[in-house]
Amino acid sequence: MNFVRRGILFVISSPSGAGKTTLARKLAEGHKLDFSVSYTTRAPRPGEKHREDYNFVSNDEFSRMVEAQEFAEWAFVHGNRYGTTIATVDQAIEQGKDTLFDIDYQGGRQIRQKWPTDSVLCFILPPSIEELERRLRQRATDSAETIARRLAMAHKELFHYSEYAYLVVNDQLEKAYDELRSIYVAERCARVRNEPLAQALLSEAAARFG
Amino acid sequence: MNFVRRGILFVISSPSGAGKTTLARKLAEGHKLDFSVSYTTRAPRPGEKHREDYNFVSNDEFSRMVEAQEFAEWAFVHGNRYGTTIATVDQAIEQGKDTLFDIDYQGGRQIRQKWPTDSVLCFILPPSIEELERRLRQRATDSAETIARRLAMAHKELFHYSEYAYLVVNDQLEKAYDELRSIYVAERCARVRNEPLAQALLSEAAARFG
Repeated sequence: MNFVRRGILFVISSPSGAGKTTLARKLAEGHKLDFSVSYTTRAPRPGEKHREDYNFVSNDEFSRMVEAQEFAEWAFVHGNRYGTTIATVDQAIEQGKDTLFDIDYQGGRQIRQKWPTDSVLCFILPPSIEELERRLRQRATDSAETIARRLAMAHKELFHYSEYAYLVVNDQLEKAYDELRSIYVAERCARVRNEPLAQALLSEAAARFG
Repeated sequence: MNFVRRGILFVISSPSGAGKTTLARKLAEGHKLDFSVSYTTRAPRPGEKHREDYNFVSNDEFSRMVEAQEFAEWAFVHGNRYGTTIATVDQAIEQGKDTLFDIDYQGGRQIRQKWPTDSVLCFILPPSIEELERRLRQRATDSAETIARRLAMAHKELFHYSEYAYLVVNDQLEKAYDELRSIYVAERCARVRNEPLAQALLSEAAARFG
């Protein structure tokens, strides 16, 4: 029996340096879920296509959309704004398209509050603060000041783990990826998402045995 | 950071013929979870060891244990009684040992009611009633009457899917196994089972950054 399962909103957040972006990309590659097409105010990079990679909009247009409350979540990243519209998310859910969100706890909270049963929230943890610090220092391009600021921010972000349903420790990438993928596969099996399957079997059984 | 996560009670139930025993055994082989050592009134088979395979007890002793409410769940299977004691389960949970239960919905319900947060309940569904019937008929040893009785029972059992948190359709064994395994891995990542991990990170961060 085929039925259209509602699309899952799979949210991945973490303190800076815990590896969420690498994990999110790996998950998008291996599975039937993809990042939603976001709106952004930044300029397209060479090769990026409007409506495929991003919806590129002006600052004024983005502001208008914010005021009109069209966004499910939006955030400043390196001085540019990025956001996902409610319309995009609703459409994905109805079409049964699973969508990946690589966003911070504020975005995660907005998604969870608006779609409590359709969203699945995962928080990536570093194996230790010492290791997190080591990873941030390895990014040779960052200044000592930037690193200190990121660590302080990571500390703040950590407190928000309690808003997430799952915690994945990113010690070894392969293990963390297996856990993240398992959460996705498991959530697709949740009874609340599959009632029509069981109901169809019961109907078939009733028709055969009365 | 190492901490002892409470053991998970992983319950697998299904209508007769949907393949739960094959799946449960496969899961026990590949992972750090095992069947609990049950008590049974049946005689040991050649090679079976008391306290390792089963705790073999007399009918009188089993009855005494039932009356003393020592069992978390027990059931008749082919005329013999099998059961798991509350003491065995509590010990496994405290020691962080994950335990697998291949039991019917009545046993599943008892486990869930007694350990609502430590138990994870999975229900295996056949892809269709037609396929379930085909599988039952393939067991050449069963009479037409036995098959009809099993199908009627399967119909009854199906109604109890709604007491389970996860539904796994056993169409292709490998896919169903991957889903079951994913549920197990995902549940180990549930935030409610891993609070100490996050708290340890917060303590480490507080000690370093104040």
